[in-house]
Amino acid sequence: MYISETSIRVRYSETDQMGYVYYGNYSAYYEVGRAEAMRQLGMTYRQMEEKGVMMPIASLHVKYIRPAYYDDLLTVRTIVKEFPKSRMHFFYEVYNEKEKLINQGETVLAFVDMKTGRPCSAPQWFVEALREKWPATKG
Amino acid sequence: MYISETSIRVRYSETDQMGYVYYGNYSAYYEVGRAEAMRQLGMTYRQMEEKGVMMPIASLHVKYIRPAYYDDLLTVRTIVKEFPKSRMHFFYEVYNEKEKLINQGETVLAFVDMKTGRPCSAPQWFVEALREKWPATKG
Amino acid sequence: MYISETSIRVRYSETDQMGYVYYGNYSAYYEVGRAEAMRQLGMTYRQMEEKGVMMPIASLHVKYIRPAYYDDLLTVRTIVKEFPKSRMHFFYEVYNEKEKLINQGETVLAFVDMKTGRPCSAPQWFVEALREKWPATKG
Amino acid sequence: MYISETSIRVRYSETDQMGYVYYGNYSAYYEVGRAEAMRQLGMTYRQMEEKGVMMPIASLHVKYIRPAYYDDLLTVRTIVKEFPKSRMHFFYEVYNEKEKLINQGETVLAFVDMKTGRPCSAPQWFVEALREKWPATKG
Repeated sequence: MYISETSIRVRYSETDQMGYVYYGNYSAYYEVGRAEAMRQLGMTYRQMEEKGVMMPIASLHVKYIRPAYYDDLLTVRTIVKEFPKSRMHFFYEVYNEKEKLINQGETVLAFVDMKTGRPCSAPQWFVEALREKWPATKG
Repeated sequence: MYISETSIRVRYSETDQMGYVYYGNYSAYYEVGRAEAMRQLGMTYRQMEEKGVMMPIASLHVKYIRPAYYDDLLTVRTIVKEFPKSRMHFFYEVYNEKEKLINQGETVLAFVDMKTGRPCSAPQWFVEALREKWPATKG
Repeated sequence: MYISETSIRVRYSETDQMGYVYYGNYSAYYEVGRAEAMRQLGMTYRQMEEKGVMMPIASLHVKYIRPAYYDDLLTVRTIVKEFPKSRMHFFYEVYNEKEKLINQGETVLAFVDMKTGRPCSAPQWFVEALREKWPATKG
Repeated sequence: MYISETSIRVRYSETDQMGYVYYGNYSAYYEVGRAEAMRQLGMTYRQMEEKGVMMPIASLHVKYIRPAYYDDLLTVRTIVKEFPKSRMHFFYEVYNEKEKLINQGETVLAFVDMKTGRPCSAPQWFVEALREKWPATKG
């Protein structure tokens, strides 16, 4: 299991007239969470695309628990529980400054060869990079 | 069961560098879908808030099947399967012009009294308005 | 001079906690305005890119006069005053249902050859399409 | 003159199919720039609204010079040239990691009393907070 944390300050543009962060904007927060998780694991999603593999989203689940507000400094905890094969699962928990859980979610991403447009496996170099940083018992 | 359809033209702002509609933007499409469903059922979400009840999102699920592209004219089919009590479920299907399914999703919305900030039941006037438009066997 | 009008219903996602449409979202409304203007003139921006020319934005000006609100049905009036050469100017006026002016703006777009990444002139086929639809005295 | 700098990492959600940051998203980057400028000056925009004054945008100008790309770490330099009276001017410059200028812009913000909905002057406490932090010759 690999856990990564990153901070996001809520922008005014992300609020709605309820005074809350619009429910659809957490998708972008989750995106930041997994991008930072990948960066900490030694490669970036930008590099993934530069090497010809893109990772479109196959599914998204969000359970909303509390609202977040303008200017809140949120913590996005991103969790990878298992090594990716043909797909990669990310789990997310968003906390506010009082360490209250705002919401939790999950995305499944596919690997797609950008030349052929066809699904492919997780690139070997990516799995190896993951393995090096993977904590304790290697997966 | 009540089914409503509305059209959405994909904006350039909604695409990402993959050339697809960004996965997080379907939340706003679903929002348009349920707003139009409510309008067709005889009341608007704006009226709901004017009458002191707001409907924050409790959960979101999306299963992505195909990408949508810039300038596609999408059809959002919004489905209400049962009468709301303390929560209201909406189901969504997004189709492109070739009638291919782009994705399908589901949201659960709560009813919240805007004065107290506490959850409440679906307002009586809303349930009655629904009942009038409800097709065939009344709920 | 060519004038085009299109309608946009304000989405909840586009409001902010002030209860207004967020000032940055008018850029997307203007984009819809010019896309519909081009469609009415006989070609789409999608076709422009398919033919290898893209039109990035060189400048944007907006003067905000009144707020727009959730669920407002806005009219975007898009005005092309002169034939494009190396750049194309669009002017915009956004009105609410009471025909009150919400804001007015202007964008300048460049033409860029997508193969070379270099600026180019307005494609001949585009200028000719414009000329056919151009009202009264041809430009 | 007061100059503030803040960093913004470009999100995937902010790119468009051109592979650039969508032109409308710089409005939100400018918003982050002025929010951080205000924070550094000793008060936050959140506090401003909590004290009953909001600052809607009166005008926006952007001159786009170079594109920004996914995962770029941008620097937003926000400049306040003079003390606010009935309106407040912010100037912005966005740079990429190679210190190349991406774009420059300007916004004018009004002060509005949230109770009455009427324009008002810059609050005295805000002007005084500004004065304390203001560099060199006081305004």
